[in-house]
Amino acid sequence: MKDIRKRIRIAVIGGSRPGKQAVDNAFEVGRLIARAGAVLVCGGLGGVMEAACRGAREEGGLVVGILPGGSTADANPWVDVPIATGLGYTRNALVVMNADAIIAVNGEYGTLSEIAYGKIHGRKVVGLGTWAVKGVDIAATPEEAVRMALQDLSG
Amino acid sequence: MKDIRKRIRIAVIGGSRPGKQAVDNAFEVGRLIARAGAVLVCGGLGGVMEAACRGAREEGGLVVGILPGGSTADANPWVDVPIATGLGYTRNALVVMNADAIIAVNGEYGTLSEIAYGKIHGRKVVGLGTWAVKGVDIAATPEEAVRMALQDLSG
Amino acid sequence: MKDIRKRIRIAVIGGSRPGKQAVDNAFEVGRLIARAGAVLVCGGLGGVMEAACRGAREEGGLVVGILPGGSTADANPWVDVPIATGLGYTRNALVVMNADAIIAVNGEYGTLSEIAYGKIHGRKVVGLGTWAVKGVDIAATPEEAVRMALQDLSG
Amino acid sequence: MKDIRKRIRIAVIGGSRPGKQAVDNAFEVGRLIARAGAVLVCGGLGGVMEAACRGAREEGGLVVGILPGGSTADANPWVDVPIATGLGYTRNALVVMNADAIIAVNGEYGTLSEIAYGKIHGRKVVGLGTWAVKGVDIAATPEEAVRMALQDLSG
Repeated sequence: MKDIRKRIRIAVIGGSRPGKQAVDNAFEVGRLIARAGAVLVCGGLGGVMEAACRGAREEGGLVVGILPGGSTADANPWVDVPIATGLGYTRNALVVMNADAIIAVNGEYGTLSEIAYGKIHGRKVVGLGTWAVKGVDIAATPEEAVRMALQDLSG
Repeated sequence: MKDIRKRIRIAVIGGSRPGKQAVDNAFEVGRLIARAGAVLVCGGLGGVMEAACRGAREEGGLVVGILPGGSTADANPWVDVPIATGLGYTRNALVVMNADAIIAVNGEYGTLSEIAYGKIHGRKVVGLGTWAVKGVDIAATPEEAVRMALQDLSG
Repeated sequence: MKDIRKRIRIAVIGGSRPGKQAVDNAFEVGRLIARAGAVLVCGGLGGVMEAACRGAREEGGLVVGILPGGSTADANPWVDVPIATGLGYTRNALVVMNADAIIAVNGEYGTLSEIAYGKIHGRKVVGLGTWAVKGVDIAATPEEAVRMALQDLSG
Repeated sequence: MKDIRKRIRIAVIGGSRPGKQAVDNAFEVGRLIARAGAVLVCGGLGGVMEAACRGAREEGGLVVGILPGGSTADANPWVDVPIATGLGYTRNALVVMNADAIIAVNGEYGTLSEIAYGKIHGRKVVGLGTWAVKGVDIAATPEEAVRMALQDLSG
């Protein structure tokens, strides 16, 4: 398999209390990211993050979780490489900084902060049932979201 | 005058390349914050931040600037207490954390990240010609913005 | 009095559980910093920090406290300008970044991290009964410590 | 091979301009960490960090690099999972937070800050030709350093 370092990295961001549809979408997005050979980066906790991680791991993908707390034990069980930061919500900026493109699924204000940081750092941000923000590309399905995120990137 | 520590703190956030209307609004917001005896907190740089600082200083107010860089020399000339962070844009989270309420004037993605962090941290966010985000209270004039921000706060 | 912005800033760092001698030294260091017209910067909490703050305030000095937590309510009562960071101990780097020179009184590993960051950022670090570290200037009394810290600085 | 998440994580810290002996020691420490099945965590840049990474990769180990800058492109070529932080030297705290034990090889003030943070966070810190600090266990060889670091840990 391709050298880990050379793989594209896609962040999946989203709320910690998603509804069923958002969970299903996040899971499918995670699966498709892994199937494309990309690394999944996320905030490492529950909800949308956990669903995407489960999906990625089911396809044998690698999952990085950048955590708000100071302990890696907080990561959901599907994170391979947990990164403790102890920065609290301020770590949101670091999640998107570590991705080549970002997919936002659902989400509350934390997700909005990550969308904003994604744009600050010049990343493509794809939205799937999330905040309507100028500069975010809207996808209708997980397939479209991952295709749009990967477009123009070469690992 | 009232003990500094006990004064209300209001953050003014906004873009670094505002138009004339936004500059005038930010200046007036800064003036009214100082006149109300509150401390102005901002990101310490140019544009909306600098206009608000000028306004606050003209009324004898105290101005705190929480800077992205590692040097206090980056602060605009109207900042009394510059705080260097070396955190880059990640410092946006700290700006709003240090205010009892927030007024957003104009602004780009950096401002959007601060609006989001304001809501994450449970602060009232008042918008004056800025992003339309659920949970942001819309003001039509600087006077209304400052009145809304101060409402329900007691220093 | 001199414009706040133009005043020299001296950080006092040290442990949160100092003995009586260290408390007395920190208090005296704080007094002398304020009497010299400099701003006192510290971590804003108890022990050496609080003693120095008390000393500075007794002389009418201005005190900035850069806190580990996300709430300014954590600051000791003598801090004029509390800055919440939510960064935990990682905020230690920010304390020394915001001073022209540093005085270390007593202290444990937290203080050692701040001494190290002081040197990383090229500041003069004066030690008063603290860690023996290459590059730290040793003072025997609070008077000597403050004189050494202020030397070569002009506010 | 063992699940990545369950592997012990050892941080190697040290200067960016080491002498030949320190480079050889760091390389050997990296090799032994990987051979023990542990993940190597480091600051991701040159000098001691790079030598340890090279050693770990030669044995097929996994290498995480927690970088000061905002771009993963800064990582040395042997880092598998680069984590950009944009925090500057303030990221030093995060390096040791992400390890079960720490080995310091050589080093300047940056290394001293990491030793201090290692102790703040309650980690075992083993020193190999580095700062003499109370609470750091001294090793004479790379073999002894890695043995001491792994002792009492179970992945």
